[in-house]
Amino acid sequence: MMNTTLKTMLQHRSIRKFTPEEIDEQSLDFILKAACNGSTMGNMQLYSIIVTKDKEKMQEMAPFHFNQPIATNAPVILTFVADFNRFNLYCKYRDAATDAYSNLQSYHWAVIDAIIAAQNACVAAESLGLGICWLGTITYNADKFIEAFRLPKHTVPVACIAFGHPDEKPELTDKLPLEALVHYETYNDYTRESIDWLYADKEAHENTFRLFAENNLPNLARIFTERRYKKTDNEHFAKVLEKVMKAQEFLK
Amino acid sequence: MMNTTLKTMLQHRSIRKFTPEEIDEQSLDFILKAACNGSTMGNMQLYSIIVTKDKEKMQEMAPFHFNQPIATNAPVILTFVADFNRFNLYCKYRDAATDAYSNLQSYHWAVIDAIIAAQNACVAAESLGLGICWLGTITYNADKFIEAFRLPKHTVPVACIAFGHPDEKPELTDKLPLEALVHYETYNDYTRESIDWLYADKEAHENTFRLFAENNLPNLARIFTERRYKKTDNEHFAKVLEKVMKAQEFLK
Repeated sequence: MMNTTLKTMLQHRSIRKFTPEEIDEQSLDFILKAACNGSTMGNMQLYSIIVTKDKEKMQEMAPFHFNQPIATNAPVILTFVADFNRFNLYCKYRDAATDAYSNLQSYHWAVIDAIIAAQNACVAAESLGLGICWLGTITYNADKFIEAFRLPKHTVPVACIAFGHPDEKPELTDKLPLEALVHYETYNDYTRESIDWLYADKEAHENTFRLFAENNLPNLARIFTERRYKKTDNEHFAKVLEKVMKAQEFLK
Repeated sequence: MMNTTLKTMLQHRSIRKFTPEEIDEQSLDFILKAACNGSTMGNMQLYSIIVTKDKEKMQEMAPFHFNQPIATNAPVILTFVADFNRFNLYCKYRDAATDAYSNLQSYHWAVIDAIIAAQNACVAAESLGLGICWLGTITYNADKFIEAFRLPKHTVPVACIAFGHPDEKPELTDKLPLEALVHYETYNDYTRESIDWLYADKEAHENTFRLFAENNLPNLARIFTERRYKKTDNEHFAKVLEKVMKAQEFLK
């Protein structure tokens, strides 16, 4: 049966334009509490949340977000950090081993915990009528954010979300049909025919035609691979991320 | 202002005991739709969801979940897969590059997308009165799940969640206070004193004393490092995961 929570989630769209209105303390408190009450590996709570409200701090980090306007115009930005530092320190001060979680599996636990918390924060905010937008740029310049936030070893920032009062109501984003995303019992791999069929609506969407014109390219795949997320860029930032994971002692 | 969505999230607890009742088709459909309507990197929807209802399939995978009863007793298990296979195939059939996303940064995007979808599914289910429990074991035996689900290259399973009608109502889990998890503007690193203070309530919790007795160990940190998530195990499974990420072409 449809309910208000489902409605909130099914009406989700990213909001990139906010009014100047602040987010009141009570709402922010609910958002943070919801974030911190999600599932977490072994109840270790392997995340930290950094609240950015200071406009100077936002300006300092704007270049690492490639100067997206939303990185400075949002009243609140929350950065979710995969964090084994706190738990390792807890172990240290209880005379337990402090190097049990310096590995790639532990890193996954912390990333997963951080994203669970982040998505709970988003749903909480949207239930309060606020708008949200993920800044994927956090995965590009993790090294710079680590410096700006003064993050210690055993932490990596993995999600960054802008929150505010919506000053726009964009149409719902065109999504793939459920059949494209859901498999039963085993993975049903895609054929040329199923790809054609599953992407047909998206390719016929008016937003897509606008993108073709803007990019002077004949299809979405080439817009992604040649303009938006190019191999050379991805491989460059993958190297940054690998270096960060090593420096933060999650990868050997 | 408190609302039903916030209430759902603030009342979250893992449910490990389900009634035999099935999850009706409409509820499962809402859960899947909510999962597939979350934020996603560049609207690429870099995840797949595998629905497991078949008891034989559950039995087959039970050992990879270390035979937790919930891995076979739940009416529905959803496995969330970080998936660049579908998008790469889309690129292939549109004469775009197919190797732009075989790297560690792209992997992060897909993992994040998959966890956003997974957490939306959890909140949707809980809003419908269903119970959920994450099976962290998916991060241990990714290689075996890849085989069992017949997952192709450019995919890695990252979340696995059991869903059902609750047959228990455990107390809310003891969590760290918000002050332990939230930082303002920059990361406020922990001292011995702040760790003592922030973990005080957890250490005084009756569940904790029960664990001390069960494990014959004097504190939580040592229960984690010497029993639950030991360094040797973590490092073993980190190697499995690294091998999987390489085999799936996300890591060189």
